[in-house]
Amino acid sequence: MSEPEEKSENIPDASAGKGVPNGGNSAKTQEDFDLATIYVSDAQYNRNIYFDTSPQAVRLYLLYNHWVFKVLLYFFILVNLSLAVFEEPALVSLPTWATMLVELLCLLVFSVRLAHYAKVIPRDKFWKDPKNICIIVVLLLTLTDMIIYGGLKAANCYSVRWSRVLRPLLLINVTEGRQLRRAFRSIRNALPEISYVFVLFIFSVLIFSLMALKLLSKRDLKTIEGTPYFTNYLEIVFELYVLVTTANSPDVMMPAYNKSSVFAIFFILYILINTYIFMSVFLAVVFNNYKKYLKEEIQQLVRAKRHKMARAFGVLQEQKEGGQPVVSHENWNKLVRQVRPDISNAHKELLWRVCDDDNQGFIGKVAFVQLADLLNIEVITLKSRPHPLESLIPNLYQSGPSRLLCRVVQHRGFVIAFDLIILVNAVFIGLDEENPLISNSEWFFLAIYVLEILLKLYVFEPRAFFSKHSFWNWFDTIVVFAALIATIINSALKSSGGYTSRQVLDIVFVLRVLRLIRVVDCIERFRAIINTLIRIGPAILTFGQLILVVYYIFAMVGMELFKNKVKFYEDLSNPESTYCGNPLLKGSTFAQLSYCKNNFNNVVSSFILLLELTVVNQWHDILLHKHPPMLTAGCCSPFQQESLIIFNFVSI
Amino acid sequence: MSEPEEKSENIPDASAGKGVPNGGNSAKTQEDFDLATIYVSDAQYNRNIYFDTSPQAVRLYLLYNHWVFKVLLYFFILVNLSLAVFEEPALVSLPTWATMLVELLCLLVFSVRLAHYAKVIPRDKFWKDPKNICIIVVLLLTLTDMIIYGGLKAANCYSVRWSRVLRPLLLINVTEGRQLRRAFRSIRNALPEISYVFVLFIFSVLIFSLMALKLLSKRDLKTIEGTPYFTNYLEIVFELYVLVTTANSPDVMMPAYNKSSVFAIFFILYILINTYIFMSVFLAVVFNNYKKYLKEEIQQLVRAKRHKMARAFGVLQEQKEGGQPVVSHENWNKLVRQVRPDISNAHKELLWRVCDDDNQGFIGKVAFVQLADLLNIEVITLKSRPHPLESLIPNLYQSGPSRLLCRVVQHRGFVIAFDLIILVNAVFIGLDEENPLISNSEWFFLAIYVLEILLKLYVFEPRAFFSKHSFWNWFDTIVVFAALIATIINSALKSSGGYTSRQVLDIVFVLRVLRLIRVVDCIERFRAIINTLIRIGPAILTFGQLILVVYYIFAMVGMELFKNKVKFYEDLSNPESTYCGNPLLKGSTFAQLSYCKNNFNNVVSSFILLLELTVVNQWHDILLHKHPPMLTAGCCSPFQQESLIIFNFVSI
Repeated sequence: MSEPEEKSENIPDASAGKGVPNGGNSAKTQEDFDLATIYVSDAQYNRNIYFDTSPQAVRLYLLYNHWVFKVLLYFFILVNLSLAVFEEPALVSLPTWATMLVELLCLLVFSVRLAHYAKVIPRDKFWKDPKNICIIVVLLLTLTDMIIYGGLKAANCYSVRWSRVLRPLLLINVTEGRQLRRAFRSIRNALPEISYVFVLFIFSVLIFSLMALKLLSKRDLKTIEGTPYFTNYLEIVFELYVLVTTANSPDVMMPAYNKSSVFAIFFILYILINTYIFMSVFLAVVFNNYKKYLKEEIQQLVRAKRHKMARAFGVLQEQKEGGQPVVSHENWNKLVRQVRPDISNAHKELLWRVCDDDNQGFIGKVAFVQLADLLNIEVITLKSRPHPLESLIPNLYQSGPSRLLCRVVQHRGFVIAFDLIILVNAVFIGLDEENPLISNSEWFFLAIYVLEILLKLYVFEPRAFFSKHSFWNWFDTIVVFAALIATIINSALKSSGGYTSRQVLDIVFVLRVLRLIRVVDCIERFRAIINTLIRIGPAILTFGQLILVVYYIFAMVGMELFKNKVKFYEDLSNPESTYCGNPLLKGSTFAQLSYCKNNFNNVVSSFILLLELTVVNQWHDILLHKHPPMLTAGCCSPFQQESLIIFNFVSI
Repeated sequence: MSEPEEKSENIPDASAGKGVPNGGNSAKTQEDFDLATIYVSDAQYNRNIYFDTSPQAVRLYLLYNHWVFKVLLYFFILVNLSLAVFEEPALVSLPTWATMLVELLCLLVFSVRLAHYAKVIPRDKFWKDPKNICIIVVLLLTLTDMIIYGGLKAANCYSVRWSRVLRPLLLINVTEGRQLRRAFRSIRNALPEISYVFVLFIFSVLIFSLMALKLLSKRDLKTIEGTPYFTNYLEIVFELYVLVTTANSPDVMMPAYNKSSVFAIFFILYILINTYIFMSVFLAVVFNNYKKYLKEEIQQLVRAKRHKMARAFGVLQEQKEGGQPVVSHENWNKLVRQVRPDISNAHKELLWRVCDDDNQGFIGKVAFVQLADLLNIEVITLKSRPHPLESLIPNLYQSGPSRLLCRVVQHRGFVIAFDLIILVNAVFIGLDEENPLISNSEWFFLAIYVLEILLKLYVFEPRAFFSKHSFWNWFDTIVVFAALIATIINSALKSSGGYTSRQVLDIVFVLRVLRLIRVVDCIERFRAIINTLIRIGPAILTFGQLILVVYYIFAMVGMELFKNKVKFYEDLSNPESTYCGNPLLKGSTFAQLSYCKNNFNNVVSSFILLLELTVVNQWHDILLHKHPPMLTAGCCSPFQQESLIIFNFVSI
């Protein structure tokens, strides 16, 4: 959908250069710096927007990229998506006019943002870009749907808010949804290769089913429910497809196996070929293709980045006498100040020294092009500041006992001692907290943890201790103090009326258990694994958005189709609760396993249900006793799982 | 266990060179050629055996590598392993003395083979090699066990054939089990890295279990069986571990979810972190490590191969006047004739031309070293022979109608027409064969397929048609003619006494369905996928052996521990069949799902049961109602699955 964006904008055509003043020793205007700033920050954040280079458009574009507007946009997308919680079938009911009003506001924000974008890029480019067309169509369709729905509602007619399915498309098609579009594009590009394997896989399932039909249908076998076993071709195909996902693994085989051990060969061959070999081939094909296209995308990004930096250089260049075009230190400084106003002078000086390693006072094109990457490198400023107590009470802080304390806290034994305390604490948490000794011990542990933090603050410089990168220090402090506050509230409630709030107690428990996680930090290797996981977080998040889009669409469709078909009753004495309020489910496995809460009656239930389908086990039980159309959701589940594995894989 | 083999033998020490005559223009003796032959064929097949270079040992070594002995060895290993079918608990009962006698014979064969090996390699090397020690220990232990067992049996005492567990070790430790040892070594090398992730994973499961205990144990929840839900810490750990394998996916969550939707967050987090993220990290770590060590192994193999070829060169080299040492064409010819007696003169000439590309009549070291790889390249000799009918009845074969026929058969339309016929055939197979029209149509289809094969034989040269590489032609012909014969037998049986043998009919059905597979061949892309799968076959087979070793050991242990604990009754009217003959299983899920045949009562059932555990679904049901020790088999199952995926992955 959005491919032309990156494709066409990587190679800007000649006309785009019209606004770029030629090099020379002329003084650079503010407009030149604005333009160069945009090129550099576009290169830095891998933006590929083909903007107008007129000074007015450039100023608008700078505004367009301001972080406040981006945050606002995402906030309204979130509001728009979460409207599903309040709309029928609702988790929290709101009147229709309220949700409609909020949705109108969202539409307005999206329109304004799009209009802003239209001002920034040339008109013909705007109308050629499928993502803008897509947003406009979605906005118009939503508006139409809202009018129809409002009208029908006013006339008390039945109507469906079908445009809700389109909402996630906005998330994909906004200019900032670049990563998401890239992921979608990689999947789409891999599809043709996958489809060949898929067809072959389906062919194999069909052939095996035909063989099963011929071998088993005439033997009068019965399933444990007493129904005829393997007599209908389509049912066999479905059963064997379920077997690929392993969800009905031994059950589907048992009647034939009980009849004769020879039939086990059939099922073993089937599992080997379809579950193991074909699924592995799928994984391999998806992995290879995804990797291939990702590589291509990244190569393209790198080319585009260099190109943009070269254009920024073109704007700011000056002609050295009889030499190559260069950018002076002064102009460079001004540019960096505008691109990243937040960085310190020391940092800026460091960057300049890296670029101008010959100390000439100006840099050429090659050195200039590196700037985008250099700006992305995070520089940690380590200032060895003295401890504030040292300047406040130098005599006491430098005294013998104080120094001994510092040495003790910094010693490896101190860490080990606290790890042991945590382990003892774990045992205490596991024991029954109604025993007064156990529940009082909590105060002791809390005191010890608070003491540990205070000691560390005494020894280490507080600003270094709570620096941006000290994840575990932050984690510790927050968990310990939150637990302290929750425990105090809990005992205050208890002593005031002997009443303990279950919610407060739950929070206390969760916080206590979270404290134990700290043990992980003490072993180098574990820290490395955790840090790797944290570093691949963004890649997983992109994929999380992708899953969200798919889930949202399925949830919206599912809610319209199946709402209130299956009901959950809190009150188990209600006779309807044994068949989920739907006579069709009387005596079904679905009701027997008390799956009534797995329904499409609100957006939260729908998401949980879809997740259960993704986890695969029992998915056939969940589906079969509903309605055939839900099969589609089930079919996508094993593939979602496959792709999830792959995505994590790739991101590592 | 077997690492020293490849490690120590790659770099032979100086003393090994004592038997190698120095270069020079001296005539080469037969012994020299024997020695060179061994070096070349060792290099060709990646053997790393540090043999004695004395002429006598060299001759013994040539004998040791003869294919007849290898086939015999594998035959006896197979016999030894398959003894499990006949021993108690037996599938086919044989008297104890018979199996013992066969086993003794096997032990004798292994001892002779080992003694032969001891003659080939220097004595100190033999005793330093752990795999020889391992074989000797296994042989001695087996002998001891047999004596004890025989004695106790004679005295009518209870005894256990515990040494059966050791049998698969022979498969790993024979000299030819190189590939298998390499696979084991790669797994073992990857273990330390995996163990870190594993410990972290277990830690995460324990923490989540603790949280579940604190949050859910006091709420008086009940499972659908009415037992208390999540009240015992160890049970929670087990349940959550099962959840990682997705086997109890929605069920374990339902009681808490039915109580409050908030608890779903706990389970969703758990599934995301442990099932998806941790399992993906496992996969990634195993994949990366396996790849890394495989690469190292292969680099080592290549070095060893070069080294061996250099030694072969050293044996055969002659000194050119004032130049480099070389090997003459004559000596080279003699060597190749001895290494590969089966290749044709034309092939040999081709190889020489590749080596001696300057046509000098001799080759240097660099060209000589390539020989091992050149010999591994399969050369397909394509002789465009005329069709035998052309020489027999040239006038008729060259006539107009005959030529037209040839053109028709070679036309693309001919293939498409037959693919369509196959599809129509598929529909007919799917229909009820008791309809006389349908069952008679089979004769029509058979006739058409036979006609197709005859036509192809008329057009294409038969020896080319049935060449080694025409997999599909062979497949077609065998399936069609087997179906023809089976159908004839079937109708003969039918017409003779109106009696149709179920077995014959089954074979007919299977053959009919197999015929349909041919459709795959008509699409280029599908053919490519199938060919890839066939090409990675050997890698999968190595892994199959590995799985076999693991399964065999578990099956042996399982059979000793659980034999006849669970019984299967063919006769369902027997009241014992409702609880598998074990009062402990009364009313259990295991008996309700009629899993009685999933037992350890003979080696075939054991293997099928272990496969079911590997497929993961319902494994907790199969295990829980047996005995705790079987948990070990279950624990290994998800990892087996993991590694299976990886192996397929790597081999692709």
